Amino acid sequence: MLSRAQIKYIRSLTKQKFRNESKLFIAEGEKIVLEWLKSRERINIIIGTSEWLTKYAKLVSMHAEATCHIVDESTLSELSALKTPNQVMLVIPIPEPSPIPMNDNWYLALDGIQDPGNMGTIIRIADWFGIRSIICSPGCADIYNPKVVQSAMGGHLRVTVYESNLVPFLESIPIPKIAATLDGRSAYGFERMKKGILIIGNESKGVSEAVLEAATDRITIPGRGGAESLNAGVSAGILCALLLPC
Amino acid sequence: MLSRAQIKYIRSLTKQKFRNESKLFIAEGEKIVLEWLKSRERINIIIGTSEWLTKYAKLVSMHAEATCHIVDESTLSELSALKTPNQVMLVIPIPEPSPIPMNDNWYLALDGIQDPGNMGTIIRIADWFGIRSIICSPGCADIYNPKVVQSAMGGHLRVTVYESNLVPFLESIPIPKIAATLDGRSAYGFERMKKGILIIGNESKGVSEAVLEAATDRITIPGRGGAESLNAGVSAGILCALLLPC
Repeated sequence: MLSRAQIKYIRSLTKQKFRNESKLFIAEGEKIVLEWLKSRERINIIIGTSEWLTKYAKLVSMHAEATCHIVDESTLSELSALKTPNQVMLVIPIPEPSPIPMNDNWYLALDGIQDPGNMGTIIRIADWFGIRSIICSPGCADIYNPKVVQSAMGGHLRVTVYESNLVPFLESIPIPKIAATLDGRSAYGFERMKKGILIIGNESKGVSEAVLEAATDRITIPGRGGAESLNAGVSAGILCALLLPC
Repeated sequence: MLSRAQIKYIRSLTKQKFRNESKLFIAEGEKIVLEWLKSRERINIIIGTSEWLTKYAKLVSMHAEATCHIVDESTLSELSALKTPNQVMLVIPIPEPSPIPMNDNWYLALDGIQDPGNMGTIIRIADWFGIRSIICSPGCADIYNPKVVQSAMGGHLRVTVYESNLVPFLESIPIPKIAATLDGRSAYGFERMKKGILIIGNESKGVSEAVLEAATDRITIPGRGGAESLNAGVSAGILCALLLPC
């Protein structure tokens, strides 16, 4: 059971202000929750239906540090930020910021990605291609927004997202810095590279002028149809598939 | 001005049932609305703030067939399916179904794509790569769902989406049929092809068994990270970038 105050508190974590204050976020959806339970990451609270918690009792018991609450589905849907019905959710501590590792082979740099769905998709792409570090400019979508957590599909467990002004970050690493733009060289003319930083810009404004100046290359995915642009997440995926070592 | 009954009627178009009955759908968001206004496609109703309609009076006047309503922003936000504030929206007739053209070079076939965001993203990808026909299995997300229209970014104007059982469609065209799966040949080992049908499966179940049997190839985007899969829209984008002629 959860008290009204506890429900209110957990619901408040759907808002960035309260996540920042409490340093906690919510993960929900069975697949994502299972990934988190299987990881050794610390979990504060596990909230699930009695049926779900019984089914996964062994996994749940591995997290002795977590408080466990049995609730009914209507309480879960009250807590949930999702539309689809849910069996379980977690309250998880937001990790302390750490310094950006300077010897990764590939990085993604995000210059003002606003849409939580795009942010989550890009974390999932990094996770798929084995990119461990994403550098976000200040003002990107909060990566602990429930929609980001949902669309990253557990990517938060393996990909670390850092916030930094992009220009000093780009200037600090002597590897190719490739900005996705609409007026760059054709992506099909690039060789795969062992190391690099792929820069993806804001959904409507693209990569900002200062960041473009710090980039070493501009890359464009050739289009032959009528669309003005591709979605930021899709562009990131295509460029990872074309530039990273196979 | 709009009457309460008109507001109720337009709001009802956010629901598939009412769209099917009235054969009308909503397009909103300035960029998308401008694309529609610039096209020669028929528009039934234009609803905008006085400021917006004045700014684009010339474009609006090209659509003499449309009824024009001046409303305030609060009425627009009442009508809107979007969270972000809006200046204008359109009510547009759903085109009559037409037979699938059999001589396109490339097609996308979607086997149970459920998420409206993915559906819209895939229409936008087709539009970017110049694919004019998408064949959806019965039960895919409705392409006139406001979220689909939003994320397709005007793609509906250039890409036609057909509903058909996929197996007979695939069997009717003698070109390569490449299904995206998690156990196929590496996408990096495929040559670009002049013609083909790229098959993208359901977000959690993938391509169904019967459709896989009708395919000529299975293709996989190699991953080196920890993610279980890539988002359906991102996969479609990557495979278009790798398979279509450059």
